[in-house]
Amino acid sequence: MDALLEQLRAGLPAEALITDAEVTASYAHDMASFCDAGAPAVVVLPRTVEEVQHVMRTATALRVPVVPQGARTGLSGAANASDGCIVLSLVKMDRILEISTVDRIAVVEPGVINATLSRAVNEHGLCYPPDPSSWETCTIGGNIGTASGGLCCVKYGVTAEYVLGLEVVLADGRLLNTGRRTAKGVAGYDLTRLIVGSEGSLGIVVKAVLALRPRPPQQLALAAEFPSATAACDAVCRIMERGHTPSLLELMDRTTVRAVNATASMGLPESTEALLLCAFDTPDPAADLAAVGALCREAGATEVVPAESAAESELLLQARRLSLPAMETLKPATMIDDVCVPRSRLGAMIEGTAAIAEKFGLTIGVVAHAGDGNTHPVVCFDHTDADESRRARESFDEIMALGLGLGGTITGEHGVGVLKREWLARELGEVGVELQRGIKAAFDPLGLLNPGKLF
Amino acid sequence: MDALLEQLRAGLPAEALITDAEVTASYAHDMASFCDAGAPAVVVLPRTVEEVQHVMRTATALRVPVVPQGARTGLSGAANASDGCIVLSLVKMDRILEISTVDRIAVVEPGVINATLSRAVNEHGLCYPPDPSSWETCTIGGNIGTASGGLCCVKYGVTAEYVLGLEVVLADGRLLNTGRRTAKGVAGYDLTRLIVGSEGSLGIVVKAVLALRPRPPQQLALAAEFPSATAACDAVCRIMERGHTPSLLELMDRTTVRAVNATASMGLPESTEALLLCAFDTPDPAADLAAVGALCREAGATEVVPAESAAESELLLQARRLSLPAMETLKPATMIDDVCVPRSRLGAMIEGTAAIAEKFGLTIGVVAHAGDGNTHPVVCFDHTDADESRRARESFDEIMALGLGLGGTITGEHGVGVLKREWLARELGEVGVELQRGIKAAFDPLGLLNPGKLF
Ligand SMILES: Cc1cc2nc3c(=O)[nH]c(=O)nc-3n(C[C@H](O)[C@H](O)[C@H](O)COP(=O)(O)OP(=O)(O)OC[C@H]3O[C@@H](n4cnc5c(N)ncnc54)[C@H](O)[C@@H]3O)c2cc1C
Ligand SMILES: Cc1cc2nc3c(=O)[nH]c(=O)nc-3n(C[C@H](O)[C@H](O)[C@H](O)COP(=O)(O)OP(=O)(O)OC[C@H]3O[C@@H](n4cnc5c(N)ncnc54)[C@H](O)[C@@H]3O)c2cc1C
Repeated sequence: MDALLEQLRAGLPAEALITDAEVTASYAHDMASFCDAGAPAVVVLPRTVEEVQHVMRTATALRVPVVPQGARTGLSGAANASDGCIVLSLVKMDRILEISTVDRIAVVEPGVINATLSRAVNEHGLCYPPDPSSWETCTIGGNIGTASGGLCCVKYGVTAEYVLGLEVVLADGRLLNTGRRTAKGVAGYDLTRLIVGSEGSLGIVVKAVLALRPRPPQQLALAAEFPSATAACDAVCRIMERGHTPSLLELMDRTTVRAVNATASMGLPESTEALLLCAFDTPDPAADLAAVGALCREAGATEVVPAESAAESELLLQARRLSLPAMETLKPATMIDDVCVPRSRLGAMIEGTAAIAEKFGLTIGVVAHAGDGNTHPVVCFDHTDADESRRARESFDEIMALGLGLGGTITGEHGVGVLKREWLARELGEVGVELQRGIKAAFDPLGLLNPGKLF
Repeated sequence: MDALLEQLRAGLPAEALITDAEVTASYAHDMASFCDAGAPAVVVLPRTVEEVQHVMRTATALRVPVVPQGARTGLSGAANASDGCIVLSLVKMDRILEISTVDRIAVVEPGVINATLSRAVNEHGLCYPPDPSSWETCTIGGNIGTASGGLCCVKYGVTAEYVLGLEVVLADGRLLNTGRRTAKGVAGYDLTRLIVGSEGSLGIVVKAVLALRPRPPQQLALAAEFPSATAACDAVCRIMERGHTPSLLELMDRTTVRAVNATASMGLPESTEALLLCAFDTPDPAADLAAVGALCREAGATEVVPAESAAESELLLQARRLSLPAMETLKPATMIDDVCVPRSRLGAMIEGTAAIAEKFGLTIGVVAHAGDGNTHPVVCFDHTDADESRRARESFDEIMALGLGLGGTITGEHGVGVLKREWLARELGEVGVELQRGIKAAFDPLGLLNPGKLF
């Protein structure tokens, strides 16, 4: 421990190191509930690539595990500390290094906040689409670590599709450059994509080249009320089947709608069983919304309310973004699931989840990136009640089993982390896990990077 | 050799094996010139996954190298046989297994021809965007092997972006499932993307889940004539900088234009120094073309000719697709390069290429996916002239060095194969190559899959 601090200090300014146990403890975990977290030996906040290299060289020399962290908004415990580890927080490396309108790229350090980047590129008439609901706080490094999604993915795809190249510090401190600044490139295996979503287990991202798009027109939204979640899912299928490309297609169930109203009096319709939000950023969004509104009615919508303006549309989005925090107020504790199924099975997924809630006698609200088939069932419970806690955990697991049975995945965007480790093997199978381990060993033979996560 | 055939026969129908040396020799190489190719011991044409597994188990038992092949339209020798290898041609596994309009996916076997899939999904109101100019003959398996691009990539991206999940037979015959049928998913490292572009060196793709899009409106094109390639590149930068998203943005230089006219009398303007083709598949393509036409004139275009109809636009595309075959008629031999640079450096790349042609006294025509910064300089020469051949090879290498110097990659879409092996290390660096080899070893510890390619 003394040796560790001494060696770290040799290559880092004093203010980059935190050793006060009370402060380091505050870096122990991300925002996932009920995931194991240890006590870090030290927290390091480097400002340069060389400092990161120094940390990794030291860690390798002394065989100390390293846990990379962004803003710790993660929902799977993937940024949780392990006992005696170095927490390597990248939040101080937060410079936007370049924005090019001709090449449509941004070059950034990992600690840049998602919303900061979005606003900066907006000023150049560009946009960086991936927009997790945590966008005001989460970092690009964390987004890359989890390959995170967001509200606009149904049209614009997830983080993975916007990462062109990376600069990565390996476990032994060496620097790896992956990918490119160009629109295309196929020189060798795609190491960039391998690192995106690797939850800090293959290397430390210290720089990223991100693809940008021209800024689309402001989106216009509608809200449609349905007598059942199944009817809303039917509408989703009709919308996609008819070839529409909404920029947003989200579903909030009755529990979610009420929780949001209770938290922020957003005036959402309390009596509805399911609310579908749909938006377009096309040249004529009103026409597209009219067509979608008609499809919603065909699927049984009782009310279809188009927003009158971009500002009103933004309010609907804000309501949607509040869903997770709002549901956290329903009960002392929540566990947030993240099952993604083929969109044609969304109705079955939501019905099945309701049956699980019923079976276990629990409140499970569902908010979904419906256009992607990505549901977030939120299991609400009282963690001081042992029986309720057990039922919560069991229902959480049954939801994943249900998703796999419907041809889905245990995680659409939140990642595996600590939370779903046991489930990863079930999804990938033995051969898949063996190859994943082989890749991990090629990058990090000593197993120092974010141990205990993924598998 | 006898043991090999005997064991192969034990699990394959007679018609799946070709041993006649004259016929097997015709499977020796793809369409790249001047790449080493050996004589296969046998060609196998399986029809089922089990047959592929049998081939790989046999190869592993007897330590025989295996070279997977699609239609052998590749341009880097990545499908070339090595001496005594099993050529594993997937062309008979050519069924489209499923098309879903709600999930917007197709599930296919690897031998399906790109154009066959395109037409099939079109009938469902969908499209499969990746469209290499060889689309009428190349296979989806080959497209996945090379992560191939095409004309529409500037708007719709490359093959990698459309592969959601794979079924892969590993070197030892085991089956690996990667990825998903869902729109999103982050369970573990992205093995799907790792296999896309791996040039048959990690496993045999036997099934693929592909993402589809709604079929866009038919595109409308214009042709703009420029007094210099530099002026045309300037127009490309202006078009992208202004936030346009054309569905096609291609450049043909004077040499290319003349070669196409000579081959197919397409009536392209002979006197132009550079021809830019731009198309839109937006709701109002004529308006977008008018805006782009104005930008072309600002950049110095002498003529801007919008197509009158979709049919006329298709003719322009056909002319563009003829570029490579047409240039092959200019001289007894050609070497086709594939350097991709940041689009802001396209002008420098094309000027530099002209200087290289001048220095070596050679004809080097350039056709480019200009919107992507992806150039195909075609070095034309007489391979029976030793000095000209040497100059051709040297100029080919200088073009790659130029591209790397401009922040580009040695290959935008054609891959590394045999052709650019020595250059891959220059682009990736030592650390990069070491990790690539580590991954290869995790998948194929005996090095049986497509040896001698990539690195
Ligand atoms: C209210 C709320 C809403 C949310 N909404 C969404 C949503 O819509 N979509 C979605 O996908 N997620 C969502 N999330 C989850 C979370 O915000 C994302 O996973 C986000 O990408 C995490 O970013 P972070 O900076 O907080 O990373 P952290 O949580 O600190 O870390 C995430 C992972 O990345 C690794 N990591 C971080 N930085 C680096 C680096 N520089 N190099 C290597 N590895 C690194 C960590 O080790 C960890 O494994 C939400 C969370 C909350 C609290
Ligand atoms: C006239 C012409 C125009 C072209 N235009 C373009 C273009 O615009 N864009 C572009 O990107 N390319 C282009 N190409 C190159 C070529 O067509 C592509 O690389 C194409 O993807 C190759 O497909 P194929 O079926 O011929 O594969 P092959 O050449 O047979 O194989 C290509 C690679 O994939 C591997 N492979 C094949 N099938 C499998 C499988 N089932 N599992 C694992 N590995 C496999 C092979 O081992 C090899 O490494 C062009 C070629 C020609 C001749």
